[in-house]
Amino acid sequence: MISPLKSRDDGRMKPQIAVIGPGNAGQPETADAERAGRALARVGAVILCGGKGGVMEAVCRGAWEEGGTTIGILSDSGNGNPYLSIVIRSNLGNARNAVLVQSADAVVALGGAYGTLSEIALALKSRREVFGVTTWKIDGVVACGTPEEAVFSALSAARRSPWYRSRQAGREYP
Amino acid sequence: MISPLKSRDDGRMKPQIAVIGPGNAGQPETADAERAGRALARVGAVILCGGKGGVMEAVCRGAWEEGGTTIGILSDSGNGNPYLSIVIRSNLGNARNAVLVQSADAVVALGGAYGTLSEIALALKSRREVFGVTTWKIDGVVACGTPEEAVFSALSAARRSPWYRSRQAGREYP
Amino acid sequence: MISPLKSRDDGRMKPQIAVIGPGNAGQPETADAERAGRALARVGAVILCGGKGGVMEAVCRGAWEEGGTTIGILSDSGNGNPYLSIVIRSNLGNARNAVLVQSADAVVALGGAYGTLSEIALALKSRREVFGVTTWKIDGVVACGTPEEAVFSALSAARRSPWYRSRQAGREYP
Amino acid sequence: MISPLKSRDDGRMKPQIAVIGPGNAGQPETADAERAGRALARVGAVILCGGKGGVMEAVCRGAWEEGGTTIGILSDSGNGNPYLSIVIRSNLGNARNAVLVQSADAVVALGGAYGTLSEIALALKSRREVFGVTTWKIDGVVACGTPEEAVFSALSAARRSPWYRSRQAGREYP
Repeated sequence: MISPLKSRDDGRMKPQIAVIGPGNAGQPETADAERAGRALARVGAVILCGGKGGVMEAVCRGAWEEGGTTIGILSDSGNGNPYLSIVIRSNLGNARNAVLVQSADAVVALGGAYGTLSEIALALKSRREVFGVTTWKIDGVVACGTPEEAVFSALSAARRSPWYRSRQAGREYP
Repeated sequence: MISPLKSRDDGRMKPQIAVIGPGNAGQPETADAERAGRALARVGAVILCGGKGGVMEAVCRGAWEEGGTTIGILSDSGNGNPYLSIVIRSNLGNARNAVLVQSADAVVALGGAYGTLSEIALALKSRREVFGVTTWKIDGVVACGTPEEAVFSALSAARRSPWYRSRQAGREYP
Repeated sequence: MISPLKSRDDGRMKPQIAVIGPGNAGQPETADAERAGRALARVGAVILCGGKGGVMEAVCRGAWEEGGTTIGILSDSGNGNPYLSIVIRSNLGNARNAVLVQSADAVVALGGAYGTLSEIALALKSRREVFGVTTWKIDGVVACGTPEEAVFSALSAARRSPWYRSRQAGREYP
Repeated sequence: MISPLKSRDDGRMKPQIAVIGPGNAGQPETADAERAGRALARVGAVILCGGKGGVMEAVCRGAWEEGGTTIGILSDSGNGNPYLSIVIRSNLGNARNAVLVQSADAVVALGGAYGTLSEIALALKSRREVFGVTTWKIDGVVACGTPEEAVFSALSAARRSPWYRSRQAGREYP
């Protein structure tokens, strides 16, 4: 039922990169998250996140100041943090974590407690590449030294991912 | 944990309007959907939809040609139609319908089979106003004569809704 | 990965029948629901419901007194009403409605507001037969005069449904 | 809306224990799973699992042979393995993992790839105690030497958990 016509992509289909991290975050983590948000906005990626506080708010604030696009996929039905371009009120509780990482072409993980661990695991199960800064050491997560390194690596991964490539080509995946 | 600071809204927080309708749609319905998409893009609303074919593709195509922003909240984990600015790969099956309407500030219904009926019911249960063109006659749905009328009515409803107003004010809802 | 061996069904695979109806229900509706619960328990069906109050609690109470099995698929992460054999804490909000009706082999609808309407629509979309007592008049819903008539009709529908038949035969569906 | 009356528990409200593990499992893992299923059935626990093959099928087969009750919360809308007393057709994809562990009073983890890791993380985030046999070494998982040890520890944890205790007392949680 979906038109087989070539995508009309004129640059509006941007790589979608999820940034995951805890709602309870200390100063180093939120500083890293804000840097990640700035870098993602500058390279023109769309930022997906859980849309609430802590790392999620910091990444959105960084992106917002650079004019970036931020999508909050909330676990509740509220408004999330004040730096969201688009709010998806999933009201799915923790089941939201699966929706978030599946929607991304690549994932950046910053710090993290059990919620972040679940997102890393769900991302790897969905074959998304995950780039982490001071996060869980799980086989499959690429450790990065700085938020900018994680962002640039995730951008490259997103661009070569089957999800982004098929979408840009106007094809369904798989 | 979410910053109590005032929203930094500089016009980027747009009303979010869901357009619902069947993936299997005839010519009159897709023509209406394309007109609704054009009108929504011109008034600067963000369009939420199921992201697949039929009415969903037609509304996105109309909006796309006017430079609008289209969000597809897919029931599967694919790419959806080729006119999506952002793709949310929910992979929730029919449970996606709840996520779609809860994310909207107001809803436009065009034509429709059982899936559309479930979205109308879920929207009304979530207290979203629903504006319909040749769709199910359900108590609570406002019947409109043209897609443009439905769009303008939905835009007004969205702007006065508690979801949009609290979001613009930088406040959580409720 | 699932064993192709024949099912070891020795009578433990019972028809699964969902009973849907509002959490806010008056005396006639709860009396009907209690009768439906008793009838379902007597015929040996497993009862699926939303697990909360009103119609949901009444159907469970009726079944419980007859020694029936009641499964509550909750929209939150609580305990539901006190007459649940099994509690599924979905915490999915309204998205739970889709999970509930998809899990049933047939559906009984009693009374109902918008939530019930969404479940009727989702059930019909999933090709489940729906038997209603004083509920929404939607094309596809079979109107019944008494709760017992709805239960016996739903039991017949469940037993001839592809979901129940394939399950009893130890085969995957579809 | 839910009756404040004391629960009518006459022994039918059993501890609910989730067993998590991969659909692709080797002989040692499936042998452990079958032993876990037998032990859980003997102690009268209700078994929750993903309902498919590998560890999930083995635990159900073990329980089935002992007359136990097995609930499969499927990620798809099929029938699952042939040893399920009750089938919940969630069709939520990986988001199902959250529903599964939230529904349990305690969790047993056997072996595991990324899906199991996500379930462990979601269980710990939901404050469920997790008992593992040759599974991920994550802070918070209690390592056990045998499936029986994991089952007995999980049973004790379930019985003292706030979810089971409030349910037995006929109270909502929290």
